[in-house]
Amino acid sequence: MPNLPESALLTQEHMALFVDYYELTMGQADLDSNNNSICTENYFARAIPQGEYLISAGLEQVIHYILNLRFSEDNLQWLQSSKSIPEISPRFIDYLRNFKFDGDVYAVPEGTVVFPNEPIINITGRSIDIQLFETYLLSIMNFQTLIATKASRIVNVSEGRTCFDFGARRAHGRDAAVLSARASFIGGISATSLMIASRYFGIPYVGTLAHKFIQDRGGELEAFRDYAMSFPHNTILLIDTYDTIQGAKYAVTIGQEMKADGQKLVGVRLDSGNLLELSKQVRSILDSGGLQETKIFASNDLDEFEIDRLLKSNAPLDGFGIGTRLATGATLDPVSGNSGVSALPGVYKHVEKIEGGKTIFTFKKSNDMAKSTLPAKKQVQRFTDPNQYCIKDRICLWNEIDRGGLLIPIIKKGKLVYDFPTLQEIQVKTQSNLSRLPNKHKTLYQPAVYPVVLSEKLKGLQQKLIKEKNQMYCSDL
Amino acid sequence: MPNLPESALLTQEHMALFVDYYELTMGQADLDSNNNSICTENYFARAIPQGEYLISAGLEQVIHYILNLRFSEDNLQWLQSSKSIPEISPRFIDYLRNFKFDGDVYAVPEGTVVFPNEPIINITGRSIDIQLFETYLLSIMNFQTLIATKASRIVNVSEGRTCFDFGARRAHGRDAAVLSARASFIGGISATSLMIASRYFGIPYVGTLAHKFIQDRGGELEAFRDYAMSFPHNTILLIDTYDTIQGAKYAVTIGQEMKADGQKLVGVRLDSGNLLELSKQVRSILDSGGLQETKIFASNDLDEFEIDRLLKSNAPLDGFGIGTRLATGATLDPVSGNSGVSALPGVYKHVEKIEGGKTIFTFKKSNDMAKSTLPAKKQVQRFTDPNQYCIKDRICLWNEIDRGGLLIPIIKKGKLVYDFPTLQEIQVKTQSNLSRLPNKHKTLYQPAVYPVVLSEKLKGLQQKLIKEKNQMYCSDL
Repeated sequence: MPNLPESALLTQEHMALFVDYYELTMGQADLDSNNNSICTENYFARAIPQGEYLISAGLEQVIHYILNLRFSEDNLQWLQSSKSIPEISPRFIDYLRNFKFDGDVYAVPEGTVVFPNEPIINITGRSIDIQLFETYLLSIMNFQTLIATKASRIVNVSEGRTCFDFGARRAHGRDAAVLSARASFIGGISATSLMIASRYFGIPYVGTLAHKFIQDRGGELEAFRDYAMSFPHNTILLIDTYDTIQGAKYAVTIGQEMKADGQKLVGVRLDSGNLLELSKQVRSILDSGGLQETKIFASNDLDEFEIDRLLKSNAPLDGFGIGTRLATGATLDPVSGNSGVSALPGVYKHVEKIEGGKTIFTFKKSNDMAKSTLPAKKQVQRFTDPNQYCIKDRICLWNEIDRGGLLIPIIKKGKLVYDFPTLQEIQVKTQSNLSRLPNKHKTLYQPAVYPVVLSEKLKGLQQKLIKEKNQMYCSDL
Repeated sequence: MPNLPESALLTQEHMALFVDYYELTMGQADLDSNNNSICTENYFARAIPQGEYLISAGLEQVIHYILNLRFSEDNLQWLQSSKSIPEISPRFIDYLRNFKFDGDVYAVPEGTVVFPNEPIINITGRSIDIQLFETYLLSIMNFQTLIATKASRIVNVSEGRTCFDFGARRAHGRDAAVLSARASFIGGISATSLMIASRYFGIPYVGTLAHKFIQDRGGELEAFRDYAMSFPHNTILLIDTYDTIQGAKYAVTIGQEMKADGQKLVGVRLDSGNLLELSKQVRSILDSGGLQETKIFASNDLDEFEIDRLLKSNAPLDGFGIGTRLATGATLDPVSGNSGVSALPGVYKHVEKIEGGKTIFTFKKSNDMAKSTLPAKKQVQRFTDPNQYCIKDRICLWNEIDRGGLLIPIIKKGKLVYDFPTLQEIQVKTQSNLSRLPNKHKTLYQPAVYPVVLSEKLKGLQQKLIKEKNQMYCSDL
C-alpha cells in the first residue's frame, strides 16, 4: 500500500519546537534550581563574512515568533511521551503550558547598517523564557542579514542597473528561497522570479523563458514568436540556446514584428559564454536592427565581483539575474580567491542578569577575539559629519544616553509597541543608510574598516570585571 | 498602532506559488500555441561540489509536492489581479484551476549513491505541467542531496563515533534547519539538537548545555550540579566556559557524586581551544577520577577534514557536534584550501518529447562540459564485482534494460505506486550503498573518479544527433 509521509512544511503550532534540546533542559534545570533571574541576551555578529558592513534583516519574523510562541497540548504531550528526555518534569511541562513572553525587546530596525559586536537585538526577560528564542532568532537573523548584505553589495556595484533574484532553485530549501527573496529585496534587488515571495511580500516578479521552451519547438524563431504572442508587453527573450549571435538576429526579427504591431521587445537575456564580448556584439545587432530600447540582461553564476568586472570593461548590460551566489550568500575573498562558509557568525549571548535588585554582568574575555563578548545591556550611538555621512559608532552602556540610539523599543512587557514598516519602506531605509556610509567602507577591494569604539563607561566596566577576575572572566583559548 | 506582518511560514496551499515566473508564462505560451506535447524532464547533478559521489535525498518532499499541487481560487485570484503579469489569460487560469498531475515519475530512492550526469528523477507529462515542478524540485533536491552527502563524509571519517547535527542556528532559515537535520540523518548522523526535526522525522535528539547556563550561576561546579540534578540519566557537561582543565576537574567531582547516587555522567563537551591537546588532558583527568565510561564530545567549526585530522592524531574523542559546516554544506578543496559555493549544481532538463507518435530528442552539446546534457529518457545500470562492490555505472536508454535499473516507478498516471520508506530505513540504505562503494572513491584526499559510461545505444543516439546538426545541437560556449 503506497504511503507518503507529510511534506514537513512548518506550521505555526509546531514552530514552538524550533528549539535546540538544551533550551528545554536548561529551562527545566533553571526551574528546578529556582533560577528566576531576569536576564538580558544580546544578538550580534562576531564578524562579517565579506566586506565591512552588514544590513540587518529578519527582525519581523523573529518578533512574530516571540509574540506567538505557545506550547500546544499536542506538543506538550509529545515532549512528555518522548523517550529522549526521560526526565522531563510535569512541573516544567506546566511552565511551558503557561508560557507567554512578558519581557522587553529592543532592536535595530531592519535595513540598518550595522557592524561587528554591535548589539542588533536585546531581549530582557526570565532566563528560562529568553533562552527559548535562541535557535529561531539565530537561524532567521543570521541568514537574512547575510543575504541582505550580499544583495546590497551586488546592487551597489550595479550602479542603478536592475538586479533580479533568480536564486530559488539553489536556495537551501523552501523557506530559504522565500526569505532570501525577502532579504534580497531589503538589500536593494528590484524583483524576484519566485511567485510565492511576491505574494507574501509584494516584491515585483520577473522572468524570461527557459531553454526548454525553445528546445521544445521546431526552432528558435518560432519559440520567440510564440512567447511574444502570449506576452506582448513583457517579453524578454533568452537568446543563447544555440548560438547567441544568431539568437540576437532572431530577436531583432521578433522586435521588428512587435514594433509593427505597436509593441516593444523589452529585452534579451544572455545566460552563457563570454558575457562581455557577447553583450557588445548583441548590443550592436539590436541597435542596427532599430531596437535601441531593447535591454540586455545577463545571468550565469554572477556575483558582485563578476558584475563589477563586466561594468568596468564597459559591457553594455542593463540588468542582472543573480542566482546561486545571492541565495546562498556566497562569499569570496577577492585577493586570495578563496570562498568562505555561507553563514553569518551571529550569536545570542547572555550579557547581564538582575537578581535581588543587583545587576551582575557577564562577558567573555578570550584570547580568541572571535569568542570574546562585551558585558552589559548596550546601546549604539552613530556619529555623522555635517553632510550626514557616518563617521563613527560608539557602543555604550544602555543608560548612558537618553535618546538617539540605534536600538529602539519593539516589545515592552510582552506587548508590541513597534509599527513594522512595509518591505518597500525597509528597502528605502537600506538605501538611505548606505548612501550615508562613505564609499571607502563599501568598495569590493580593500574596504576600510568602519570605526566602532567602546564608550569610556563600557570600557571601564569591562576593565573592572577583568580586574576582579571573577567567574564571569573566561579564559578559553 | 503596532502592526506585525505574518510570519511568512509556508502553507500547503501557497506552495502552489513556489514557482518561478517563467514556469507560468511558458505554460500560458504553451497553451496559446497549442503545445501539448508529452515531454520528459530529467533531474541530475552536473558536478559534485566535493568528493566523488552524492547521496540522493529529498524525493519524499518532491513527490508530496507533485501529488498535492493544486491552485486554489485564492491563488488564482491573486495571479489574475497581479499587475506584473498583465497578460495572464482566463484560459490559462482555467488550466491551472483544473491542474492535477497525471503523468509518470521514476526516481532513484533516497539514500542511493549517485554520480554526475546520472538521471536521479525522470518526470514525464504534458510540457505545461512538468515545468511547474522545476523550482521546487531543484530547491529541495539540490539542498538535501548536498547535505546528505556532506553528512556521509563526516560520518565516514568518524569511524563509528557518534555525530550530532548542531547546525540549526546557522542553517539558511527554518526549513533549511529542519531539512538539513533530515538529510544529515540520511547521511548517517545519529541525532539532532533541533526538537522539531525530531518531532517531524523521528530523529533522536541530543544536547548539552550552553555557556549561558554556567555564566548565569555563581560558579561552574554549582551549574554542573544543578544540571545533573535535573537530568541524572542524560548529563553531558560543557566544560570550557572558563578553563577546560578546571572544568574537567569539576566534572570529575560531579561524576563521582553521580556515581555515589548510582548514576553516571554520560559525557563532557569541549567547544573551544586546541581540541587535540585538551581531549588528551581531559581524558586523563576523567580516567584518574574513575570516570573511564564518561565520553568526550567535541564541537567548534568541525567538518570532515578537522575530524579526520583529530582522529589521525589519536584524539580520544567519542563523538562530534557539527554545526555550520554541516547545515550549510560547506565545501573545501583540501589541496588549495579554497571553499566553494554551498550549492549542488543540480538541474532539471528537457530530454525528449513525443509528438504525433514521434519521439524527438533534446540535448545540449556545449564546449562548456558543465552545460552539456544527454538526450532521451535514461536509466542507470550499476555493475558490481563478486564481493558486491560497485565497479561501474552505465547510463543507457530507458528501454535498453528490462529491470535492475536504479530508477524505479514512483508515480504512474498520477497515482503513487511507491511505498516510501521511513527515514531510519533510508539511513540504512545509505550505509549499505556506501559500504559497497570502494574506499578509493570515498577518501577525503584525492578520491578516485567512479567510472560512469554511456551505453553504445546512447552514444550512438548522441552522435547521430550531433551529425544531424539539428536545432537540438547547442553551441553555446
